[in-house]
Amino acid sequence: MNRLVALLTDFGTDDPYAGQVAAAIAAASEARVVSLTHGVPPHQIHLGAHIVDASLEYLPCGAVLLAVVDPGVGTERHGLIVRRDGRWLVGPDNGLLTPTDGDIQCWTLNRPETWRSKVTPTFHARDIFAPVAARLANYERPEWLGTPVQDPVRVDRPSACADTPIARGEVIHIDVFGNLITNIPAAFVQTGSMLETRVGATRIDGLAKTYGAGVKPVALIGSWNLLEVAVPGESAAERLACRIGDSVFVRHADD
Amino acid sequence: MNRLVALLTDFGTDDPYAGQVAAAIAAASEARVVSLTHGVPPHQIHLGAHIVDASLEYLPCGAVLLAVVDPGVGTERHGLIVRRDGRWLVGPDNGLLTPTDGDIQCWTLNRPETWRSKVTPTFHARDIFAPVAARLANYERPEWLGTPVQDPVRVDRPSACADTPIARGEVIHIDVFGNLITNIPAAFVQTGSMLETRVGATRIDGLAKTYGAGVKPVALIGSWNLLEVAVPGESAAERLACRIGDSVFVRHADD
Amino acid sequence: MNRLVALLTDFGTDDPYAGQVAAAIAAASEARVVSLTHGVPPHQIHLGAHIVDASLEYLPCGAVLLAVVDPGVGTERHGLIVRRDGRWLVGPDNGLLTPTDGDIQCWTLNRPETWRSKVTPTFHARDIFAPVAARLANYERPEWLGTPVQDPVRVDRPSACADTPIARGEVIHIDVFGNLITNIPAAFVQTGSMLETRVGATRIDGLAKTYGAGVKPVALIGSWNLLEVAVPGESAAERLACRIGDSVFVRHADD
Repeated sequence: MNRLVALLTDFGTDDPYAGQVAAAIAAASEARVVSLTHGVPPHQIHLGAHIVDASLEYLPCGAVLLAVVDPGVGTERHGLIVRRDGRWLVGPDNGLLTPTDGDIQCWTLNRPETWRSKVTPTFHARDIFAPVAARLANYERPEWLGTPVQDPVRVDRPSACADTPIARGEVIHIDVFGNLITNIPAAFVQTGSMLETRVGATRIDGLAKTYGAGVKPVALIGSWNLLEVAVPGESAAERLACRIGDSVFVRHADD
Repeated sequence: MNRLVALLTDFGTDDPYAGQVAAAIAAASEARVVSLTHGVPPHQIHLGAHIVDASLEYLPCGAVLLAVVDPGVGTERHGLIVRRDGRWLVGPDNGLLTPTDGDIQCWTLNRPETWRSKVTPTFHARDIFAPVAARLANYERPEWLGTPVQDPVRVDRPSACADTPIARGEVIHIDVFGNLITNIPAAFVQTGSMLETRVGATRIDGLAKTYGAGVKPVALIGSWNLLEVAVPGESAAERLACRIGDSVFVRHADD
Repeated sequence: MNRLVALLTDFGTDDPYAGQVAAAIAAASEARVVSLTHGVPPHQIHLGAHIVDASLEYLPCGAVLLAVVDPGVGTERHGLIVRRDGRWLVGPDNGLLTPTDGDIQCWTLNRPETWRSKVTPTFHARDIFAPVAARLANYERPEWLGTPVQDPVRVDRPSACADTPIARGEVIHIDVFGNLITNIPAAFVQTGSMLETRVGATRIDGLAKTYGAGVKPVALIGSWNLLEVAVPGESAAERLACRIGDSVFVRHADD
């Protein structure tokens, strides 16, 4: 089976940028190309990193994820290959590709002969990362494409802290249905026996399993593997008058 | 030739939802994956059903259409396979996949061993429907994936009635060009010899063949196989000050 | 390796139009289908032509580009195959596919037996151009699909003139990052030794290599192969209060 190359960028789809990246990969390999999303808000590395974290397990082992949210394109930041959970990631070394901790292997991209012969300084995604992703999909080895590095950039994602009974996070994204996605990870929420969530003026008791029941706001672990707040059949953002950046508090009680 | 899996959802493309579904299919089969649209307005089953109706014939026989507009995800609504006009449809049993009438075969999805091992209650598209679609694309049989059912949910689409000389419908969609798509089916319009269409304060005589001629509003059967109203080279929605939900009247006269 | 078919349209992705075109190609060939963009603003042939110019080199030789910005669909304008720089282009004969000058070969589409059996007058992209693109991807010859023509429609793109020291152009597009894309081609800018760019009340000295350095506005040749104005890390459109259509002046000085 041909390998899969998944794309994740902040390029949108109104410009030809994402399409040129896909074409560059298809031109250099038989890999199947799938877009995870090109709708990361411009330059938001943290949100992109959350999507990488949440999406990796849905790619088959051996798949390549080309992820680019890259405000530093053309500066001295390096390009990176990351080996993580059996997948390959390619993109800028700015924290987008790396978990906050955990065991990964990294290579810095430094073999220009494996890139497009003419590299545009404003478009490394197309001219460097796409050819490298295509080569990984063609079963080339990372050591042919770069040099091992031990200290890739890492960015903190959650402000919530797993070892206290009260956590403070924030709304980091509002999805197409108006659900409020927070930066509080599932791992934290699932340790407590009772949960109380507060966002703005709204207090929610307990953790729901699904959006479907009732019309009251619910807190649940959604498909981002993060705590989210939803109002079944409606936009929680509108109903609760919430915005990106609003604070979210979560409290565990053992009774 | 590898089978085709087409996607139709209300997920948009700003979130990774549609991309994770595509990745899940690509991970489980060699099928080629094509997105019909992810731009159905959230939760609008009727509009999604119109797009299913209008698009099915452009998929090759044997293709799989994974269609998900699913406000009831996580509740007791079932998942469904539909065999319709030689294609396979997979999605929620809420009327999205089924014609208003006509001969179809249906199976309710009840073999969890054919799904993703961990099903997220908020994301059946990725965890149930995508694996089932991939299996159908891999030539598995529907009876391995579910149990036949005789009474799938059906939803009425047109309010227009084919056997009266006057029909009343409404604008159900405004497309990217500003064309007004109504819910009056082609089958009704083509039965009369002379046609008069009224939408808002605008009256249009006759049925045009194409957008191209003149600058006056025209009524025509467009690519949705529904009556639509267009203003050549302009947005009919703006020029005629029309909105989704506006009434449309059509009258046949035999002279 | 299966040939690549790239798509470029003004259809957006909220309607099923672009998806039906992709499905029609996939139904008729094993070609891999990639979307360059469906976000060309409706009916803007000039902008679409710039994207064609800028994107062609990123498609592999032998690839097919189906490009449709087609306000005249259903009128007497012809369909066209263009052979250009080793690629095949298919779409309307309205200037979208053709360079302003340069050596190309063209065929006018006039073999209805190679189209979809039922052609909808409003949707040639799906019913004529997609089948023709699929046939080219299947290695059919252009002379089986049309008749050679010598005088395809050509449209002027730049208002800038390459042989004067002062050029006047305009902002033709604002991309997702807020960069101002002008219609002044790279070929003109690179001939001078010193460059001064004026857009609105902003004057920029010199030509930058990349977005990355500083916070001042920069002028550079970006991935469209056109002069663009950017503000690193910000939206130039907002910071400089610029809009599509604003004038841009460029002056070369030899000192």
